[in-house]
Amino acid sequence: MSDWTCKPSAKALRTVNPIRAIVDKVVGGPVVERTDGKERIPLSLGDPTAFGNLPPSQILTEAAAAAAYSNKYNGYVNACGVPSARAAIAKHYSTEDVKFTSDDVVIASGCSGALELALTALLDTGTNLLVPAPGFPLYEVIANSHGAGVKPYRLDPATGWECDLENMESQIDENTRGILINNPSNPCGSVFSEGHLEDIIRLAAKHKLPIVADEVYGGMTFGDVKYVPLSAVSAKLGGIAPIISSSGLAKQFLVPGWRVGWLTFFDTPFGAIKEVKKGVMSLAQVVLGASHLAQATVEKVLDPEKEEDIKAMADFKTQLNSTLADQSTFTCDSLSSCHGLRVVRSSGAMYVMVEVVPSMFDGSFTDDVTFTKLLLDEENVFALPGSCFGAPNYFRVVYCAPKEKLGEAYGRIKDFCERHKKVE
Amino acid sequence: MSDWTCKPSAKALRTVNPIRAIVDKVVGGPVVERTDGKERIPLSLGDPTAFGNLPPSQILTEAAAAAAYSNKYNGYVNACGVPSARAAIAKHYSTEDVKFTSDDVVIASGCSGALELALTALLDTGTNLLVPAPGFPLYEVIANSHGAGVKPYRLDPATGWECDLENMESQIDENTRGILINNPSNPCGSVFSEGHLEDIIRLAAKHKLPIVADEVYGGMTFGDVKYVPLSAVSAKLGGIAPIISSSGLAKQFLVPGWRVGWLTFFDTPFGAIKEVKKGVMSLAQVVLGASHLAQATVEKVLDPEKEEDIKAMADFKTQLNSTLADQSTFTCDSLSSCHGLRVVRSSGAMYVMVEVVPSMFDGSFTDDVTFTKLLLDEENVFALPGSCFGAPNYFRVVYCAPKEKLGEAYGRIKDFCERHKKVE
Repeated sequence: MSDWTCKPSAKALRTVNPIRAIVDKVVGGPVVERTDGKERIPLSLGDPTAFGNLPPSQILTEAAAAAAYSNKYNGYVNACGVPSARAAIAKHYSTEDVKFTSDDVVIASGCSGALELALTALLDTGTNLLVPAPGFPLYEVIANSHGAGVKPYRLDPATGWECDLENMESQIDENTRGILINNPSNPCGSVFSEGHLEDIIRLAAKHKLPIVADEVYGGMTFGDVKYVPLSAVSAKLGGIAPIISSSGLAKQFLVPGWRVGWLTFFDTPFGAIKEVKKGVMSLAQVVLGASHLAQATVEKVLDPEKEEDIKAMADFKTQLNSTLADQSTFTCDSLSSCHGLRVVRSSGAMYVMVEVVPSMFDGSFTDDVTFTKLLLDEENVFALPGSCFGAPNYFRVVYCAPKEKLGEAYGRIKDFCERHKKVE
Repeated sequence: MSDWTCKPSAKALRTVNPIRAIVDKVVGGPVVERTDGKERIPLSLGDPTAFGNLPPSQILTEAAAAAAYSNKYNGYVNACGVPSARAAIAKHYSTEDVKFTSDDVVIASGCSGALELALTALLDTGTNLLVPAPGFPLYEVIANSHGAGVKPYRLDPATGWECDLENMESQIDENTRGILINNPSNPCGSVFSEGHLEDIIRLAAKHKLPIVADEVYGGMTFGDVKYVPLSAVSAKLGGIAPIISSSGLAKQFLVPGWRVGWLTFFDTPFGAIKEVKKGVMSLAQVVLGASHLAQATVEKVLDPEKEEDIKAMADFKTQLNSTLADQSTFTCDSLSSCHGLRVVRSSGAMYVMVEVVPSMFDGSFTDDVTFTKLLLDEENVFALPGSCFGAPNYFRVVYCAPKEKLGEAYGRIKDFCERHKKVE
């Protein structure tokens, strides 16, 4: 018997998460036993459920249990989703200017699965997608898996991470197939104003490009800041640019593990994305979307029937946003008081980007990767380096942990920054 | 504002379900209101839950509800699956000759999702996969979506749908990347003997090809007929061929809508599919598998802890198989007594293929498509034409409906065949 090996496909070889290599540089070293008694505090996980302090609504968990007991969600349904869920999603995103129908909705295995469907239907080898920098690396992973590429456009910290539209426009070429807009933003925690969204839409329309929106943090905003879906804005402008938007239960309803995401298709009056939508629906036939058990819960949280449930879900949202707003403020205040760190305040989602100014330190680190590594080694606090998101010299903080844990972490970061202060 | 359209990707355009066009020929005509009072009996749906007569085990539904209430399955876990589920699957497929570990298991969104992962990691543009004829069309849909193709090998009705190994071997060329084996078979309802599986494995080893096994009907066999996993057989032979096997909760546990599937990797001692497995694991990072809510149930049904639950799950399996065995016998007996029909008896899964001999009829139909269309028009009984599975002049019957409904359907088919008998 001689040895032989099966070659993996080009697509499998191209599917690489670039974060991995960067994170390995931070956490990959030999594990040293700690003698300082400092337990690890991870500020790295984009999972709001990681600490157990942010449970989902009882309405949601009861809906899932009821779905299991009902035996009504055991069989196959339409590959694009459970009818009640599609209808609830369509209603949820409808405004005076745009009326979605179930036919405009495709449910997928998580928001990642939804984005994969959309990008698979848009991207070919040799094409490209415009993506935000800083931005979530999944867009690039998916594009690369198709032999396509991404062209980053700059988000400007000076304007609270608005898109640098001039830079965005300069990145468009004849192979560009779409513009990815992530609002509210991971990793920036920023929320675009309606006026800024209008400018983005006008730019997309000018260049005849569809917008792929990652709006999975939609609705997670603080204080007076409002999230407006891109589809609503494009509709107000007469539907000048088509919007393929992705979202899901993951973040707003605190169940990322349930893997329920969706796409909504907002088209121009002349049907710019008609064929792409058909393509997505064909692709959806292959894997048949999210678990029906989990899909069954969608209508209960997006479109509850009973007066008391409507109130309970509204209270849930208010409570979650006020907790996150409070922790965001605490985070931004704490970290901006640290030597050598600059914070661009967060107004949504569950993230904030913190700038490290290496010249203000003693030379123990030279960039975000060495900074986060030393912080982990010395203080056992783990945050993802900005390089993971295309933002060197930043690090990302997820502020979902319980406040006392956040306080402990920020205290350690403060000590760390003091200790490594540059002595003039 | 001028019109413009976004071009869908080549992959989206290539992703076409060939069944659709065939089924449209059967059901696509104008809907005529019936005056004969015959309600529609669909024998077409490969969904054992469609009629409500085959409910899942209470252990399963209670496990799902408990998972929802526990708040333990809300967050992200390993992209390859929930640890308890991976461990239970590894244990389930282990034998004296092969010990799987969790690391050999990847959980996906349904068995279709699992197959898509495996084939995506194997197939490139211009390559091909050997698939059974008759066979399930999904393999071709996935292969085509990657710009790859399929080469059908013949299953022989004369040997109870065993693989025609000579024909299989003749189909292998330098672009072949694997052999798809579906056992028990959809649409044939056949189950391969261990000896036949050995022959297949030897052939694969000879040509240095991996076997991709679709074993989603594994364990669903009747009477003395036994299902042996391909991995167990290859292990007995010293692991001469690697097996990437797919299965899931869908059919054996009667919850296709829950979308829980998995791959197990059985490798040769020299690691023939090491790189392919790595590729699958990279691909799994993108969409993060099945709903954790549903994954949480896997250990409860595959590897129950309590004595009473072990017994309950064994009873559930015995009961399901005996019901299906009874309905299979009833189906084969009823249809083989119809004029002009020949039945290859089914010994597993939930299907049987029925041959139509057009020369024995009056000329009202000339093939399986026109036969099933006329049967639908005249008797309101719907079965999928064999052409959907690459088997012209057959039709497939799903015998999961309640027995009285099956009896009604077979009575109508008998009348239909009598009425259209050729008058000598």
